[in-house]
Amino acid sequence: MYKVVLIRHGESVWNKENRFTGWADVDLSEKGKEEAIKAGQQLKKNGFTFDLAYTSVLKRAIKTLWTVTDVMDLLWVPVIRNWKLNERHYGALQGLNKAETAAKYGEDQVKIWRRSYDTPPMPLTEDDERYPGKDARYAGLSKSELPLTECLKDTVARVVPYWEKEIAPQVKAGKKVIIAAHGNSLRALVKYLDNISDNDIVNLNIPTAMPLVYELDENLKPIKNYYIGDPEAVKKAMEAVANQGKAK
Amino acid sequence: MYKVVLIRHGESVWNKENRFTGWADVDLSEKGKEEAIKAGQQLKKNGFTFDLAYTSVLKRAIKTLWTVTDVMDLLWVPVIRNWKLNERHYGALQGLNKAETAAKYGEDQVKIWRRSYDTPPMPLTEDDERYPGKDARYAGLSKSELPLTECLKDTVARVVPYWEKEIAPQVKAGKKVIIAAHGNSLRALVKYLDNISDNDIVNLNIPTAMPLVYELDENLKPIKNYYIGDPEAVKKAMEAVANQGKAK
Repeated sequence: MYKVVLIRHGESVWNKENRFTGWADVDLSEKGKEEAIKAGQQLKKNGFTFDLAYTSVLKRAIKTLWTVTDVMDLLWVPVIRNWKLNERHYGALQGLNKAETAAKYGEDQVKIWRRSYDTPPMPLTEDDERYPGKDARYAGLSKSELPLTECLKDTVARVVPYWEKEIAPQVKAGKKVIIAAHGNSLRALVKYLDNISDNDIVNLNIPTAMPLVYELDENLKPIKNYYIGDPEAVKKAMEAVANQGKAK
Repeated sequence: MYKVVLIRHGESVWNKENRFTGWADVDLSEKGKEEAIKAGQQLKKNGFTFDLAYTSVLKRAIKTLWTVTDVMDLLWVPVIRNWKLNERHYGALQGLNKAETAAKYGEDQVKIWRRSYDTPPMPLTEDDERYPGKDARYAGLSKSELPLTECLKDTVARVVPYWEKEIAPQVKAGKKVIIAAHGNSLRALVKYLDNISDNDIVNLNIPTAMPLVYELDENLKPIKNYYIGDPEAVKKAMEAVANQGKAK
């Protein structure tokens, strides 16, 4: 039996400011840093350890991983950064305030951009300063790999092959793996692991900086999954996730 | 022409306490953290950037690199941790106070352990809790790779092949590389790059957390080297290094 720990980054400055983030490289807020410290403490208290870590190339995930491994005295653990674990690219919405965008385009349109499985937001243009092709960290990517926008389906299409080709073989080789990533890259992975339908995944959210443990069988099929944290916080998070599918 | 930046970690807690450190995983002191911030600021100010970083598996070097890349907004840069860049293993002296050790074994003996190129300190035994074979981070090493003690010659014997096989090909491929490591692993590398004799290298020290730039020709032979920092600090460091070979 194998175990993998997923962790979404702590609250970012733009989560707090209610702005669309995507690939914008926004830092953790003070609350986000504290969340990451708590996550590390809870993992340590529950006897977890790691010998391989994966994260995105965005600092809110990288710093969350750093803080967790610092608290656990595991800074020596190899860390593999890969853009395929990045947040969903939010296209031309990146940086815009969510409420202002709703006022401009209408709430229904914004809901489609946020919630549709296969309708991406308006794309960036290549002359936009937000275009990833202008960022040194994506210098190794081909033009077809550089997104101008993404729907969740597009994110699934890069996260799942990365899991299959890069991470899963390491898990099968017995490595104790942690993946520090983003709301949508982790939803993409959870969708694949738990075989969640395109309709159901759009209503499932993962709480920030709360370690999510997957116990997997010899074929890496989930046996069970659970959050690690103080019992009250875990209960709230589980209820919140359970209620996400319900009408509001 | 290629450029590589070497940086020794900032002051550690045991530097400050005058204890033999070696592979003991000691944290940076507050002064050490400040030194690392300044190093990052100076590199940024001087227009440096990186796209690949190497460090040891010891947190004082890992944290120095983290701080430098955080200040430079380069946390996305891939970081390769390898034990071959670790500090010289200090054998059974690790953790002992330098003055107390001198009182016990005599100053001449301690000087030999500290300064001889090819005489290592007393070895650890495998039942010693400081034996690297008991540490999860060295789980992948063969018994013959796990040191019980090292002289500088032993450190050279692991650092130089690592440079030749792993780092040099990346530099030749055009990667902008920073190496955050330790007094002796960097001396080992400098000895090789500058072709310094066994006698002369024992008197050369590298200041903490001051970026040392090597400009290299197409065969990776040094054209020149220089420190990056505020002019007064660089002047002092260069004079200190120059004076190290002189009789005291």
